Parts: sequence; C-alpha cells; structure tokens
Amino acid sequence: MHSFLELSADFEKRFDKRHFPVHPATLYDAAQYILRIGGKRVRPVSVLMGCELFSEINDDAYAVANAIELFHNFSLVHDDIMDKAPLRRGFETVHTKYGESTALLAGDVMLVVAYEQLNQIDTTKIQSVLRLFSKTAKEVCEGQQLDMDFEKIAMVSLEDYLNMITLKTSVLLAASLQLGAIIGGAGEANQKHLYEFGKNIGIAFQIQDDYLDAFGDPEKFGKQVGGDILANKKTFLLIHALSVANDKQKEELNQLLQTNSEDKVSRVLKIYADCKVAEWASTLKENYFNIAIKHLEELAVSNSRKAELEKLARYLLQRES
Amino acid sequence: MHSFLELSADFEKRFDKRHFPVHPATLYDAAQYILRIGGKRVRPVSVLMGCELFSEINDDAYAVANAIELFHNFSLVHDDIMDKAPLRRGFETVHTKYGESTALLAGDVMLVVAYEQLNQIDTTKIQSVLRLFSKTAKEVCEGQQLDMDFEKIAMVSLEDYLNMITLKTSVLLAASLQLGAIIGGAGEANQKHLYEFGKNIGIAFQIQDDYLDAFGDPEKFGKQVGGDILANKKTFLLIHALSVANDKQKEELNQLLQTNSEDKVSRVLKIYADCKVAEWASTLKENYFNIAIKHLEELAVSNSRKAELEKLARYLLQRES
Repeated sequence: MHSFLELSADFEKRFDKRHFPVHPATLYDAAQYILRIGGKRVRPVSVLMGCELFSEINDDAYAVANAIELFHNFSLVHDDIMDKAPLRRGFETVHTKYGESTALLAGDVMLVVAYEQLNQIDTTKIQSVLRLFSKTAKEVCEGQQLDMDFEKIAMVSLEDYLNMITLKTSVLLAASLQLGAIIGGAGEANQKHLYEFGKNIGIAFQIQDDYLDAFGDPEKFGKQVGGDILANKKTFLLIHALSVANDKQKEELNQLLQTNSEDKVSRVLKIYADCKVAEWASTLKENYFNIAIKHLEELAVSNSRKAELEKLARYLLQRES
Repeated sequence: MHSFLELSADFEKRFDKRHFPVHPATLYDAAQYILRIGGKRVRPVSVLMGCELFSEINDDAYAVANAIELFHNFSLVHDDIMDKAPLRRGFETVHTKYGESTALLAGDVMLVVAYEQLNQIDTTKIQSVLRLFSKTAKEVCEGQQLDMDFEKIAMVSLEDYLNMITLKTSVLLAASLQLGAIIGGAGEANQKHLYEFGKNIGIAFQIQDDYLDAFGDPEKFGKQVGGDILANKKTFLLIHALSVANDKQKEELNQLLQTNSEDKVSRVLKIYADCKVAEWASTLKENYFNIAIKHLEELAVSNSRKAELEKLARYLLQRES
C-alpha cells in the first residue's frame, strides 16, 4: 500500500505532459495552462487509493484518475468564469489570461478529453464507470447552480446548504474513490461504503474550510482571515448563526451583511462567539468525520489496507491552511 | 427505407420530452428550453438514415441520435454566449433568457447528458462510438476557436477557411452518418464513405449558406440579404474575392470592410459580380456535391437503399432560404 504523498508524486509525474493536440494552440494552450497550475491532486489520487484497496494500481486506474483531474479542472475553469475570479492559486485564471470565450471552449474540450480517458479502460467496466462519472458531473453542475441561486436568497436553510455543498464539492471526492474501487474490482457494498466515506469526508472538509476562513490562525492560513465574512458568503457558520441568534443578534448580523464597515469582520466574529458557532462547527465536522470512519470500518478489506485512507482523512481534516 | 421527412417527424415526436431532471429547475429548465426551439434535426436524422442503410433503426440508433442533438444544442448554447447573440431561430438565446452563468452550466450538463445517452448502447459498440463522438466534439470546439481567431486576422487563406468550416460545421454531419452506420453494423470502408459523403455535403451546404446570404432572393431568404457583408464576416465569397481581385478592387474592398456606408452591400456585390464570385461559388459547391455523391456511389449498399440520402443531399443544397 502506498501513502497519499507517494501516489501524489507518482500521479504528478505521469500527469505532467501535454494532454491535448498542439493545434490550434490558441485553444489547447489555454486548456493545458490550468493543468500546470497544479493543486493537491486529492481527487485523482483518491482514485488510485480506491483502486489499491482491492488490487494493484493499473493503467485503467491512471486513465480514470486523469479523467477525474481533467473534469475537476474543467469545472474550475468554468466556475472561475461565472465567479469572475481573477486569480486561482496565485496565478491568473484562464479567462483572465486567454479571454472568456477561449476559457469557455477550453473547459469544454477538457470535459471531452476526460471522457476520452474513460474510453481507454477495459470494456467490461466502461458502462459502470461512465454511469457514475456522468451522474457526478451533473451533480457538480447542479451544485454550482444552487450556489449561484443561493447568492440571491437572503436565508438558506442548513439542509439546503448541506445539499448544495455535497453536490458542489463532496460527490466528486466520493465518486473518485468509488471509481477507483470499480477499477479495483470491488463489490457493490464496498463501493457504496467507500463512496459514503468520501462524501462525508468532503462535507467535513468544507466545514473546516468555512471554519478556517473565520477562525484560522492568520500566520498559518494562506488567505485573508474573514474573507467569507467580507464577501457575505453563505457558509456553515453564517447559516447556523442566523438560525440560533436572538432577535437582537439577528438584526445586527443582517445589518452587517448590508455594509462593509471596517469592523465588519470583528463584529461578525463577536456574534459567532456569542452564538458558540466555532464549537458547533467543530462538533458538526467531528460528526461527519465519524460517519466517514464508520463507513471505512465497514469496508470488507483488511485494516492494514485501509490505514492510508484513514491517514489521508485525518491529514485533510487537521490542516490549518 | 424511410424519407428524411418521415424520420424527422418520428425523431421529433420521440425527442419532445424532458431530457433532464426536474431539480434544480433554475439549471435544467434552461437546458430544456433550447431543445424545444427546434430546428430541422438534420444531424440526428442523419444518424437514423446512416443506420437504416445497413439495418433496422433500433434503440441504439435513437440513443445516438439523441446524443448528437444534445451535443449540437450544447454547442449552440455556448457559441451564442461567445458570439453575444441575442436571438436564435427568432427566440431569445439561453443566456439572454437565463443569464450567462446558467447558460454556460446548461451547456455543460447537455454535453454530459449526451454522453449518458451514448452509455445506453450495446457494450460491443460503445468504444468505437465514443471514440468518434469525442474526436468530433473536439473538432467542433477547434472550429469555433479558429472562427474566433480568424475574426482578428485581416487575411485568411481559402485553405484555412475551408479547414475551419469543415471542423465547425461539416464533421458533425459526417460523424452523425458514420455513427448511424456503426450502429447499423457497417464495415469500416462503408463507414468511411458515409463520413466523406457527409463532410462534403456539409462543406457544399456552407458554400450555399454564404452564397444565399449575398445572392439570395430577398423574397425567399428569411434573413436580411447582405448580412454577412455588413458584419464583415469572412465567407467563401469574400475570401475568394480578395484573392482574385485586382489592386484597385482589393483596395476598394478593404476600404469597404472598414466602413458601414449605406451603399456597402451594393458596392461589395458589384465587386463580387466583377470578380465572378457567384459563378465561382456555384462551381465550388457543385464540386463538393459531386465528391459527396461519388462517396455515396462507392457505398457497398444497393442503390435503392441510398436513394433517400441522395434526396436529402439534393434537398439541403437546393434550398433558397
């Protein structure tokens, strides 16, 4: 069994090549550009780890891992257009560098090339792989749409927010693990447990993301602490605060959401403290983590094989940046 | 054997249903909207006709036809965003009606649902169908990128324009016919002839499109005659005129391209007449039509089976609007 870091280095080396034709360079250089910006490659490595639970990592697993990373980058390129984001991981976004039309098309071809990767695998597995991949791709689009819809709504329920976050971010991690398991020859029950493990880790990860943005150590947290608050972003924290605050706190929060005063972050954080939002978020994250671990335990695979996945889960959820 | 019109009515009836989940309606209603606007359904019906050359039209052929029509509409939705087009077939474009972000996502899910349709077919054929479909999808994106690139270049060669048009519009018709043939069980040589038939008909169709825009009968032509001239659009006609015009004509043409004077259309048409552009275009169109018919003749299928395809080709190329 390999560790996340070993597989990540291995994947990075294999993935670091041209994934597109040379011509027209005006299109394909834009697609290649985002792939080189990197990232932690958590999703494709999850494919490899999902596979290695059940068998050796083979070419089919690498093909699916490529497809997942291409899909993930396709969604980043299109999301960045929608969000009008100038930067990603410190680099210019594709539409900033190459223009919106080229970024749109570059995203499109990345999705097509992802499907081309899936078409490389053993024919006996193509249908189940394509089925899960396409279902997940639709869900990720649904999550992005719901996220945009929620921006226009004053009040979002925790249930609706959870559903949106699950679609937008968790199902892709879940599907990556399950796709690896399919390639590895896992039975349906094991596939399902692995999917649920990934889904719940994904939700816990997002809670942590929201948490760090508000309560992170500025020295360790790479971004500006309080960025979500300044952007009036709906987060687990804000939604919970709005649901438990008393009338006075609720009024103040709603007023703060409509201003950009200098003390906005500190005043929102004060309300979060009064409402014990940090404690609630920690418990919620713990709950999802525990559900994930339960599914990992239920996997009919020896404990020694599962160790690296549990380590990955703990690593993802104990980061401070 | 069925006629184009019979198969078109049949396809229309089957295709007229919800192709997407109900929720979130903010996303999927936008995707469904463009499908209802209609069109001639030439490409999906070509799948059915390509299949019927070799066997009965079965569920796999309908699934591929659905995928082709979904893909075509995906490309229209994204192209309309890039072209900032307010209308399509007299209706508001998706981004005009639902906003650019939703249109972008709606296009994305349509592409995914197209692949879901392909995943319905017999496993023994999935790989070759996916291979051709994805290759074609990339080419259509390449064609759109080249079209945008050409807008920024003063002079485009006929060869480059032809390549762009082939990618942007002809390969999808060609692939539709070949995909139908694959489903129908055709051998590779027959598949190839059918592809070339469709590709050359597609090119001839585009020459006719450019021709009608300049020389069409205003009574029969639905759009404003001279629209391409007013928009300085690179067309077969303009590219040829620029390549054969004498220095004086060339200077006048280049000047006209930089103005929007009232007599722009009539003055460009005068140069086209002096350069015999109409005659050249008619001959060029005829040449591609003849190449197409030659490939149809080479098909190892009885002539009676081919009759409807030849009729379709003549119908597409003899229209006046």
